[in-house]
Amino acid sequence: MEYGRFIVLEGGEGAGKSSAMKMLEAYLPRENTVFTREPGGTPLAQKIRQMLLQEAVEGAHTNVIEEPIEISPLTHFALFWAARRAHVEEIIAPALKAGRNVVCDRFDASTWAYQIWGQEQPELIPLFRMMREHFVIRDARPYLYVYLDVEPEVGIARTKRRGIENEFDKKTIEFYKRVQRGYREFLGSYPCRSIDANRPEPEVSLDVLEVVMSALA
Amino acid sequence: MEYGRFIVLEGGEGAGKSSAMKMLEAYLPRENTVFTREPGGTPLAQKIRQMLLQEAVEGAHTNVIEEPIEISPLTHFALFWAARRAHVEEIIAPALKAGRNVVCDRFDASTWAYQIWGQEQPELIPLFRMMREHFVIRDARPYLYVYLDVEPEVGIARTKRRGIENEFDKKTIEFYKRVQRGYREFLGSYPCRSIDANRPEPEVSLDVLEVVMSALA
Repeated sequence: MEYGRFIVLEGGEGAGKSSAMKMLEAYLPRENTVFTREPGGTPLAQKIRQMLLQEAVEGAHTNVIEEPIEISPLTHFALFWAARRAHVEEIIAPALKAGRNVVCDRFDASTWAYQIWGQEQPELIPLFRMMREHFVIRDARPYLYVYLDVEPEVGIARTKRRGIENEFDKKTIEFYKRVQRGYREFLGSYPCRSIDANRPEPEVSLDVLEVVMSALA
Repeated sequence: MEYGRFIVLEGGEGAGKSSAMKMLEAYLPRENTVFTREPGGTPLAQKIRQMLLQEAVEGAHTNVIEEPIEISPLTHFALFWAARRAHVEEIIAPALKAGRNVVCDRFDASTWAYQIWGQEQPELIPLFRMMREHFVIRDARPYLYVYLDVEPEVGIARTKRRGIENEFDKKTIEFYKRVQRGYREFLGSYPCRSIDANRPEPEVSLDVLEVVMSALA
């Protein structure tokens, strides 16, 4: 049986990734496409996601809220790879092997853009490459990255309109500018379609749909 | 101020590590020695430890027992490094910097022995070395590894006498033989004192105490 194709959707804050995922879920054939997201996708990865996002962890039948935990860039880096590997082994690789296509909301390019560029850890570049070889390339090599390239100011204004409460100061804008540079750098080296995500979300989503449908054709 | 010294205690199943740690805690001066263990030592690392050991996770005020999660060797590998880094940043490096000595029950040699040798992932050796550079060497370089070298049959018989319920079949013995080979390989390259742990535990613990005291003198 032929392997499925692995499509990764990437983008910074407010790039319109969620809307694009909804569009893909609505129009791609469900029977041979798996939709998933990172971090998450498996029980273990979900636990790690909770730690990473410093979300309040709720006991299954209670409202126990735990203290958020400070996580350093290096710890983040390793946790993301752990969650990614669980996700690859349990969801992505088996689906590809069974001939199904996989569309994933964020993957390794996010680690590159956020941990290495956003959090300014350039010394991790060789380590990133080696982790990628071992954790991704052997059984979950992305066929195409679709990158929603949004200017940080535009993306952040968009999330503000959605009423997401976040502090977006100058430091935040600079962080997302580094993330954007990181994405552009990463995606220049891999099979990628970059989409101008500064336009209205429906247009962006339609472009994503077109690009992904032609990649899967 | 002078940096403290970082002592790591290592050993396979039933080597007598816990008894030796108790001896060290009883006789080393508390005011300038930090005792810790891996995985664990910080809230984050503790959460990771729970996942790694597939322990039942209990909500703070409940008895919610979650399903144990299957964790693959690669995911294990990344999770151990994540927990290790949190532990280094929050406990080990600050103590060493403040001039306190640190005695840690297990550290990176365990990942080497269990994940790479025990779980037979030799292709991870270059990755291990690079992770070690980034996660350990810069601020938590071990001054001495003390390795309790026990024959798997002896160690396993010892844990059986303690009433620990585990299945110890031929496969398990072979696993611990690989772990032992891994330790010997690792410790041949680093500052290490190997102690014959096939003897009665009190003798072993006394030897550990002597070695550690002279290292810290």
